[in-house]
Amino acid sequence: MGESLMFKLAEKKDLDGIIAMLADDELGNKRERYEHPLPSNYVKAFDAITADPNNELVIACYEDELLAVLQITYIPYLTYQGGWRATIEGVRTSAAARGKGTGTELIQWAIQRTKERGCHLVQLTTDKARPDALRFYEKLGFKATHQGLKLHL
Amino acid sequence: MGESLMFKLAEKKDLDGIIAMLADDELGNKRERYEHPLPSNYVKAFDAITADPNNELVIACYEDELLAVLQITYIPYLTYQGGWRATIEGVRTSAAARGKGTGTELIQWAIQRTKERGCHLVQLTTDKARPDALRFYEKLGFKATHQGLKLHL
Repeated sequence: MGESLMFKLAEKKDLDGIIAMLADDELGNKRERYEHPLPSNYVKAFDAITADPNNELVIACYEDELLAVLQITYIPYLTYQGGWRATIEGVRTSAAARGKGTGTELIQWAIQRTKERGCHLVQLTTDKARPDALRFYEKLGFKATHQGLKLHL
Repeated sequence: MGESLMFKLAEKKDLDGIIAMLADDELGNKRERYEHPLPSNYVKAFDAITADPNNELVIACYEDELLAVLQITYIPYLTYQGGWRATIEGVRTSAAARGKGTGTELIQWAIQRTKERGCHLVQLTTDKARPDALRFYEKLGFKATHQGLKLHL
């Protein structure tokens, strides 16, 4: 009985399912390469993320089913009197889980975790091509006070 | 003869001047506390930044004069086939150096550095209360494709 939705740090065995989820997305399907074996750069990136105490790859699962993923980066800054911030990136929910509140619960879990790490601010950017995502984050209390700029190298 | 504008990683001796610059800003003057001795959280944050190989605090100097500062964070992500990104934050130019191209040169230097680290993307957010900053970054080639959202904890 009770809650079966679980939030935890991703392990190597979860990587294949995460990449499948990243590729199954209207923007991600142009950017990712979900093949077997997985392109080695995914494995290298996974190893770099999990080796870094300031990066966490978090997944939401229901029993053995992977439902959502995001990455938290904890960053020390001089601004705000030397405050730590958390950046959330790479938020994706599986097609099966969309619209069921899983993403909301995952973000709330992540926010709680950043509080426990002593962060004073959580920040993220969302593509203007995803208007639903903007409303999703605003409902969670985020304010779109900034422009998010990118330069592809 | 030649260029005297220098870009380099900040050292402990630069910290006082950096905090003075962060405090001398229309948004920063509400957030920072420039006192002697410096509040210890600034020193702790400086130590955390410089101890982390994925964070760099970069300054622009003309001879001994501190003209501008920014922070680069290098982050490994699974997205974009396991690509590294760089985030630029805390960009400030001294009152004396504004409008003289120092900020532009500093950002260009930082972009070059992120290329050398193998990043495929540089990203930053800029407060919608700073419309000049948006134009400044757009001139440098950044595209405001994203909303930048913040949640103060």
